Amino acid sequence: MTAAPTLPAYPQGYLSLAKNIGVKDDTLDFTVIYSTVRATAAAMFTQSLFCGAPVVIGREHVADGHLQALVINSKNANVATGKQGLENAREITRLVAQELAIAPEDVLSSSTGVIGQQLPMEKFRQAIVGKLRQELRPDNLGASAQAIMTTDTRPKLTCKRVGHAVIAGMAKGSGMIEPNMATMLSFLLTDAALPADTLQPMLRQAVEQSFNMVSIDTDTSTSDTVVIMANGLAGEVDMAAFQTALNEVCTTLAKEVARDGEGATKLIEVVVTAARDDQQAKRIAKAVVNSPLLKTAVYGADPNWGRVAMAIGKCHEDGDIHPERVSIAFGDTCVFAKGEPQAVDLRLLETYLRGEEVQITLDLGLQNGRATVWGCDLTEDYVRINALYTT
Amino acid sequence: MTAAPTLPAYPQGYLSLAKNIGVKDDTLDFTVIYSTVRATAAAMFTQSLFCGAPVVIGREHVADGHLQALVINSKNANVATGKQGLENAREITRLVAQELAIAPEDVLSSSTGVIGQQLPMEKFRQAIVGKLRQELRPDNLGASAQAIMTTDTRPKLTCKRVGHAVIAGMAKGSGMIEPNMATMLSFLLTDAALPADTLQPMLRQAVEQSFNMVSIDTDTSTSDTVVIMANGLAGEVDMAAFQTALNEVCTTLAKEVARDGEGATKLIEVVVTAARDDQQAKRIAKAVVNSPLLKTAVYGADPNWGRVAMAIGKCHEDGDIHPERVSIAFGDTCVFAKGEPQAVDLRLLETYLRGEEVQITLDLGLQNGRATVWGCDLTEDYVRINALYTT
Repeated sequence: MTAAPTLPAYPQGYLSLAKNIGVKDDTLDFTVIYSTVRATAAAMFTQSLFCGAPVVIGREHVADGHLQALVINSKNANVATGKQGLENAREITRLVAQELAIAPEDVLSSSTGVIGQQLPMEKFRQAIVGKLRQELRPDNLGASAQAIMTTDTRPKLTCKRVGHAVIAGMAKGSGMIEPNMATMLSFLLTDAALPADTLQPMLRQAVEQSFNMVSIDTDTSTSDTVVIMANGLAGEVDMAAFQTALNEVCTTLAKEVARDGEGATKLIEVVVTAARDDQQAKRIAKAVVNSPLLKTAVYGADPNWGRVAMAIGKCHEDGDIHPERVSIAFGDTCVFAKGEPQAVDLRLLETYLRGEEVQITLDLGLQNGRATVWGCDLTEDYVRINALYTT
Repeated sequence: MTAAPTLPAYPQGYLSLAKNIGVKDDTLDFTVIYSTVRATAAAMFTQSLFCGAPVVIGREHVADGHLQALVINSKNANVATGKQGLENAREITRLVAQELAIAPEDVLSSSTGVIGQQLPMEKFRQAIVGKLRQELRPDNLGASAQAIMTTDTRPKLTCKRVGHAVIAGMAKGSGMIEPNMATMLSFLLTDAALPADTLQPMLRQAVEQSFNMVSIDTDTSTSDTVVIMANGLAGEVDMAAFQTALNEVCTTLAKEVARDGEGATKLIEVVVTAARDDQQAKRIAKAVVNSPLLKTAVYGADPNWGRVAMAIGKCHEDGDIHPERVSIAFGDTCVFAKGEPQAVDLRLLETYLRGEEVQITLDLGLQNGRATVWGCDLTEDYVRINALYTT
């Protein structure tokens, strides 16, 4: 196993453990993150109508704006598991609460992995009962970032200082990624003191411009969850500085999720400007970054920019797109300007497309709406990874 | 080159030619289909806002309900080509009309292939001027079905008798296939006598339940066009029988388009029943058949039915889906019944998934809405074909 990543700074008062409990194989698959004091908290969840049992219970537990512990497993999502699945998720939060001597309503559980199979509960009981207290230790979040991975190729962990406080964040992504109001899984921990009713709108702002701007494959997960805990041990911070830092932490993690999409070799950033409004800009940017034909062209470093025009064109519900006002650029190279194809050095464009980051900019020539979204290329490896995932 | 396919019956009065004019390589890339008498006609086109020049002009020419000739090239779509592209498409219809001594407004042109490059007009002029009349011959539609192919692996041609009349139809598909109110390219020819104002609603009904129910990759083409010509040489037919036959011809071609999707190894049919209404059924069926994770699982014969649940769940704008009422079956095997996972013999399910046709049935437990859609699996070959298409 690769050594767990470390951070230059950790928020105070968070203890954690990560271990293998054998959900599916012998990699890290279970983690608990515990705040030594009760923290204010906010969360956003998947909008999937087929959401997982932990999401149902997580919504209940975060409703009062407080949490003290997170318990997360990978390799099994506890989704489409009926009444038994709900009972299992409740039992896990209850057992963790007992061990840590806190209220079950202050524990949020989260699961990610295969859909439609019951959790191996005996393994969870053995991993929790009589064990958690002595296994928790400080400055150990890197192992947690490893334990929440499924097909991710690397852990995603970052931090940012705000005054005397620190925000640490981790995320997992990889496939089934088109979050809507939330992301796959992301856990944000800070020792700043922030009231619960401030935390929720701050989280929403950060998520809207980071995780909600990522798409790997248009498939919305049943388990998307992003949670922030603020335990206040570092005291109060400047709110605007905190919001900026939180946005940056979430954007860093969101881009890492896109860059490490299943099978991906490149990060694709699509910037739409001069749209009617930000919503239109986002819809069109998503249509481009999600187009399988654009994604495969980027993979092949094929300067087939017509596929960008195609993807814009398919947003026919946005009736006010006018090709004669549209301009398209790859990096600094404009390929289509106000309705006319441009003379382009295709070899230079190919060289640009062979890089690890590809930026596509669209100017719609309308108003001031804009959006930036991130995705990745579509490769044979995406197909291979997903053709044989459960077995 | 493979021999052109033939039909057991041809409609009367249609002459055609197909040849290579060197648009890109040495395969058939140019075809003209001509009715010896002026025909009533109807057409449906892409809703793409970035539609091709031939679509713009085709809409004008079919507006009066009559056509007499079709001219189609493959290997270049004449899309995103600005003012020059429109002039080129107009010149092609004008040259064909001159050769055939008919009105330019009775010629519909269509182009399919790469986006963003101008047509090699000198090759078109040489192929048309002074040449068409002597090259046209009867019962030659198989060569036309070959000439409209791009990445299709086989021509799609079918026919159906209605009384004394025949409907012949051809289509091309393969990639960039999520038609919306029309299909990639399909040309339907009949010698039945049908007034123009009847033909358009008949075509719409047939297209709605055939081509509009197909999706290969969610990418809507800029060039989708389906045209029917009825030259009346076989006299009048029973209208209901004609509609039924037309629906069947279109459905046969639509399923062939799905089965021959780029890189596809399997046809996937998704049937949604007991939806709130037909529109909801179609949205959910499309979400399932378009899910990259479901498509890759079918490719890998992986009985990962949780991905069907995921795809239903992501239709969160359809707020009245209730997992506890939903049932999911693969072929005859029910995997999830009214909210509870079922005990399933996974090896039997794997064997079923190894077949060339996979049917997935969803019962939403609501009202009487239903829809059947077709798609294909997602394979490494889809990626390979599209990573290197222009070059």
